[in-house]
Amino acid sequence: MRTIRSSLLVLGFAILASCADHKPAVESVTVPAATSSSGIGLPSWNDTPTKHAIVDYVARVTRLGSSEYVSPEARIAVFDNDGTLWLEQPAYTQLVFIFQRVHVLAPVHPEWNTEELFRSILKGDMNGVAATGEEGLTKLLAATHAGMSTDAFAQIVHNWFETAKDRRFDRLYTELAYQPMIEVLRYLEANGFTNYIVTGGGVEFVRAISQSVYAIPPEHVIGSTVKYKYSIMDGVPTLLRLAQIANINDGPGKPQTIEAVIGRRPLMAFGNSDGDQQMLEWTAAGSGARFAALVHHTDGEREYAYDKASKVGKLDKALDEANSKRWTVIDMQKDWNTMFVPVSAQPTQPTQPAQTK
Amino acid sequence: MRTIRSSLLVLGFAILASCADHKPAVESVTVPAATSSSGIGLPSWNDTPTKHAIVDYVARVTRLGSSEYVSPEARIAVFDNDGTLWLEQPAYTQLVFIFQRVHVLAPVHPEWNTEELFRSILKGDMNGVAATGEEGLTKLLAATHAGMSTDAFAQIVHNWFETAKDRRFDRLYTELAYQPMIEVLRYLEANGFTNYIVTGGGVEFVRAISQSVYAIPPEHVIGSTVKYKYSIMDGVPTLLRLAQIANINDGPGKPQTIEAVIGRRPLMAFGNSDGDQQMLEWTAAGSGARFAALVHHTDGEREYAYDKASKVGKLDKALDEANSKRWTVIDMQKDWNTMFVPVSAQPTQPTQPAQTK
Repeated sequence: MRTIRSSLLVLGFAILASCADHKPAVESVTVPAATSSSGIGLPSWNDTPTKHAIVDYVARVTRLGSSEYVSPEARIAVFDNDGTLWLEQPAYTQLVFIFQRVHVLAPVHPEWNTEELFRSILKGDMNGVAATGEEGLTKLLAATHAGMSTDAFAQIVHNWFETAKDRRFDRLYTELAYQPMIEVLRYLEANGFTNYIVTGGGVEFVRAISQSVYAIPPEHVIGSTVKYKYSIMDGVPTLLRLAQIANINDGPGKPQTIEAVIGRRPLMAFGNSDGDQQMLEWTAAGSGARFAALVHHTDGEREYAYDKASKVGKLDKALDEANSKRWTVIDMQKDWNTMFVPVSAQPTQPTQPAQTK
Repeated sequence: MRTIRSSLLVLGFAILASCADHKPAVESVTVPAATSSSGIGLPSWNDTPTKHAIVDYVARVTRLGSSEYVSPEARIAVFDNDGTLWLEQPAYTQLVFIFQRVHVLAPVHPEWNTEELFRSILKGDMNGVAATGEEGLTKLLAATHAGMSTDAFAQIVHNWFETAKDRRFDRLYTELAYQPMIEVLRYLEANGFTNYIVTGGGVEFVRAISQSVYAIPPEHVIGSTVKYKYSIMDGVPTLLRLAQIANINDGPGKPQTIEAVIGRRPLMAFGNSDGDQQMLEWTAAGSGARFAALVHHTDGEREYAYDKASKVGKLDKALDEANSKRWTVIDMQKDWNTMFVPVSAQPTQPTQPAQTK
């Protein structure tokens, strides 16, 4: 089994101990009424240099006859997910899923009561969980993400997202996507771009909601993967999920996976943490005009304010590089007049994941 | 390093010894004038039940109001490459590339003269090559597919394809795609399908020609992959190709990679060998109407006739399963009135691979 050091999950795992008693600075906030995203504008963006940087860049590469013109098939834009397209504080959504799954599964696993890792989770003792380290993480992966078919896992995740809520905002996790970023997705599509989500999270976890939340189809979600085992079970061809990491899509893994899956270097890249640094570097270093942007979490009132000192979504070296290379830094407080998607924008009937199976 | 037993390359490697003295049964053939593929018909297909099976299936799943209707975003069709979309006899094109690269690189590798593997290749002693086994293959991978940047490798492959010719047909390898299959690609696109190439060959090798030969963009090519290493070289972000296999996309690997990359089960699958069996099984086992087809090489005059006894593109168990499960079996001799693409259909200016870098 591949060592999962430095992976998103390890990071998230270590964070949990420090987050266990986390109290958001602002317990109750008023979420501003969302601006309509109809049309192809960027109404949730204030009229600041950041918005102009996006609009100007798109104009430069899409204007026919321009020396910087890029044909539509090469207009690839990549977006990190946690902290870039949706909330990642106080813990990555997938980590919340893992812990809640342990609670759900505990009744059929009486042996967990005598195992330190699971006992700690069930007692809410995050320090005890963190102390189990990578070995603990492997066990959690096996317990919550493996041992079932790909179809069964997709259904489990789908069902979880239907009711799982963030406590501070009292919203479903699927309602904590950033409205201004959704507008960027639509704006780029209207300008001939193809958008990909390039997440450190599990690819199937994000695919479960990519269409309903972002209108991005599963084949345009790139993420971390477990290994599958193809087998005929009771006469039925099945892909079984194994408790083995196949690919960790974080840090230098992001450009590597982009090359393996897309085979083109992106024109535009959006991230928010040091885990996105190499993806932005790789994008920005391409020939011609390129665009790299970091979402800087500066709004402790409407969301969270964090960067260099944060354990979740740490933004340190990438911020320094953004400043020295003049990448675009999106100041959430100053640049966005709306934070989250309007709740009414959520479809009442989420797509069944098994529909095309 | 992952064991590469049972991989396409190992298979191809073992084959070489038997192919070294291979003389095609027909040394010189007249390639029939290609039928124009303009429009969205299937002019190179004879009016046989096979053609009707394709047309009827497409009609069933695209007819609005039909109980078997499938929405366009779920209309995924997957195609094996070697032997399904283009010639694979007497040896896989990528294997020819490997051996020719060794000849090209030999002058700067004087040490190869004292190494049995390379000496055998340079002398044309294929039995000696095969005797080096997996260890030899690993060395060949390192010598020909690794140690350079992804951009540099793409350029090497691109340049090779510009002049490399098959001896029997005296055509560029890129001119040995099957015209009837190209028509199927276009026919499906015209009916709202998205086509993916799912090849056992290296993904970058096939991407080098996928747009110019098949009009399929790089992001719709899924294949075997080596590992990359992201690093900053002389200040430039670079993806270095390592001599390590990341994924072997053959046999059960095909449905596994399809799930990891696309995240949807295909509606239609086309293959030609036992390496495609699981991809066809996985496709056919989906809910609703599905379509699985094997290209059966039955035409020793115009191409090659082979199946169960062949070492290249062996079609044995998959053919039995096709017969028992009533998958469509394409009889190249009876079903196709044209074999290869018209030479004039090749663009005179192939796309430069580095264009979007």
